[in-house]
Amino acid sequence: MRPQLNETPTRLQCLLSETNEDEWLYSHSFQSHYSVKKSATVLGMGSDNVFMVKCDESGKMIPAELESSIVTAKEKGSVPFYVNATAGTTVYGAFDPLNAIADICQRHTLWMHVDAAWGGGLLLSDRHKMKLRGIERSCSVTWNPHKMMGVPLQCSAILVKKRGLLRQCNDFGAEYLFQTDKNYDVSYDTGDKSIQCGRHVDVFKLWLMWKAKGSEGFGSQVNKCLENAEYLYDQLQRRTDFELVLKNKPEHSNVCFWYIPPSLRGRPPGPDRDARLHQVAPRIKGRMMEKGSVMIGYQPLGDKVNFFRCVFSNPATQQEDIDFLLDEITRLGEDM
Amino acid sequence: MRPQLNETPTRLQCLLSETNEDEWLYSHSFQSHYSVKKSATVLGMGSDNVFMVKCDESGKMIPAELESSIVTAKEKGSVPFYVNATAGTTVYGAFDPLNAIADICQRHTLWMHVDAAWGGGLLLSDRHKMKLRGIERSCSVTWNPHKMMGVPLQCSAILVKKRGLLRQCNDFGAEYLFQTDKNYDVSYDTGDKSIQCGRHVDVFKLWLMWKAKGSEGFGSQVNKCLENAEYLYDQLQRRTDFELVLKNKPEHSNVCFWYIPPSLRGRPPGPDRDARLHQVAPRIKGRMMEKGSVMIGYQPLGDKVNFFRCVFSNPATQQEDIDFLLDEITRLGEDM
Repeated sequence: MRPQLNETPTRLQCLLSETNEDEWLYSHSFQSHYSVKKSATVLGMGSDNVFMVKCDESGKMIPAELESSIVTAKEKGSVPFYVNATAGTTVYGAFDPLNAIADICQRHTLWMHVDAAWGGGLLLSDRHKMKLRGIERSCSVTWNPHKMMGVPLQCSAILVKKRGLLRQCNDFGAEYLFQTDKNYDVSYDTGDKSIQCGRHVDVFKLWLMWKAKGSEGFGSQVNKCLENAEYLYDQLQRRTDFELVLKNKPEHSNVCFWYIPPSLRGRPPGPDRDARLHQVAPRIKGRMMEKGSVMIGYQPLGDKVNFFRCVFSNPATQQEDIDFLLDEITRLGEDM
Repeated sequence: MRPQLNETPTRLQCLLSETNEDEWLYSHSFQSHYSVKKSATVLGMGSDNVFMVKCDESGKMIPAELESSIVTAKEKGSVPFYVNATAGTTVYGAFDPLNAIADICQRHTLWMHVDAAWGGGLLLSDRHKMKLRGIERSCSVTWNPHKMMGVPLQCSAILVKKRGLLRQCNDFGAEYLFQTDKNYDVSYDTGDKSIQCGRHVDVFKLWLMWKAKGSEGFGSQVNKCLENAEYLYDQLQRRTDFELVLKNKPEHSNVCFWYIPPSLRGRPPGPDRDARLHQVAPRIKGRMMEKGSVMIGYQPLGDKVNFFRCVFSNPATQQEDIDFLLDEITRLGEDM
């Protein structure tokens, strides 16, 4: 059975409830954005029908794990229909192996969506765009130029391969709002293509910036941000008071690390050290906010206790800013 | 059975599908915003489960019609749970009789929502706020300050009576985004209270404007807009080349009217005149856009052919602008 690409989620849902089968969505553990679960809830599918797929240590979905869970689901009589791959995860900045996932989606006739909200910007860089190889095989892509591209909030795009699909899904033809007897080509009226009605023209900012900078200009911005990430990675490797969360060079501009305060240096790993390390980042972040000198985020992930996560999206950041960041963290945490 | 006010729509939906009963929503015909149907579709309830309630000639829901359709639905074993009342309909600017609707919702234990997107601004005016009497008895209210209040797009509020409900509905507790171990009171972090994640701080514009103008300033703005509507209404009554769609004085700032071009004056009403009149507003609107002198919208509604709909939300509009509008329509349509 080939899922109809022009079915709206709601119609798919009806289709599935008629056959009384579970719906399965796939989303990989710890790395997919929580909006996948949230959307499944809002659409009435229920978050229990979102299935997590294991990823490797660097946060990439493991294709074999995806395939085996699809097979298991089918054997149990469920109807998988949608796979959420991620190009640039929120915390690690990991890129899923899109071509391998596309092969699986093709074999099992599943809708392949790529959440490139954070990583999509890399397509503008000749140096980094190969990290998204395979994205052209997906059925839909989300891309938030307000993230990597520096476009002011909010500017989010959903790109769908099948022409006319968004209108088919969202068109309610409210004649009192979307008149069809205007004296110009009403196919340019996009209001009925989206879920919302009255909206700010969010794309105008992007259009203007693109006109001003060109793809090359955007590409240089991206390159600069990723160079900064590499510089931070190099500095962290050199310093003994910091520890990297991932050993490999960052693929995106995310760099995740712990600051190891004096009292924890040389301590053996284990629950006691973890419990104390878990409190370091929040305390330093609190001091950052009080002092107002720098600010970066932190979070735990899976079995990893609170760590700092530095992302670069402002190309104006210089290496000396990065040096200052690390020195400042050291200053703020030297009594811990 | 009292519906649980803290149920999310999704959970309500599940509750209802367990009993295998239809869900019924109520929405009055021709006047409710099309987003009611759209939301029912997105949530997986289906637009067939949205029931229209008849309204009177001025566009107000007829309470007796609401009650009788609820009773009929219950007799058929359905479970009505939500009534959408409107305070300020899009086309006519009509206000539903909220107190009478609240009585019915109370009797049948239904969620009463007031769509005050357009009419909510009148609450800021001592002169006009009585038009929303009964709104305080509703369970939830939508209000778009970007409409009547002149706040730039977009600025939309949903107000819910039950404290904590939005967080209960939308909270996914994604720990990698909404840290709970911050050094300040995280109850001020509202990100997990809404459906969307990354958002512009839409309310800041409203807050600033409110600080600057005060409730009194906003009230004067509203009064001015409604005075303009009354002025337009008076002028339309005096002129023989225009015809009002509603005979009564406008309640909101909406004024709906036809321009009757020379060739149609004195023609008897009927299908032939209607067919020709239907084309007048779109043609004049086209000429407005080409000339660039004025611009107002038009639409058909029910059995009424295309008519102009003028709404005032900019308090800077003067009576001479309104005179110009009518003179300009006459100029643009004098050869029709």
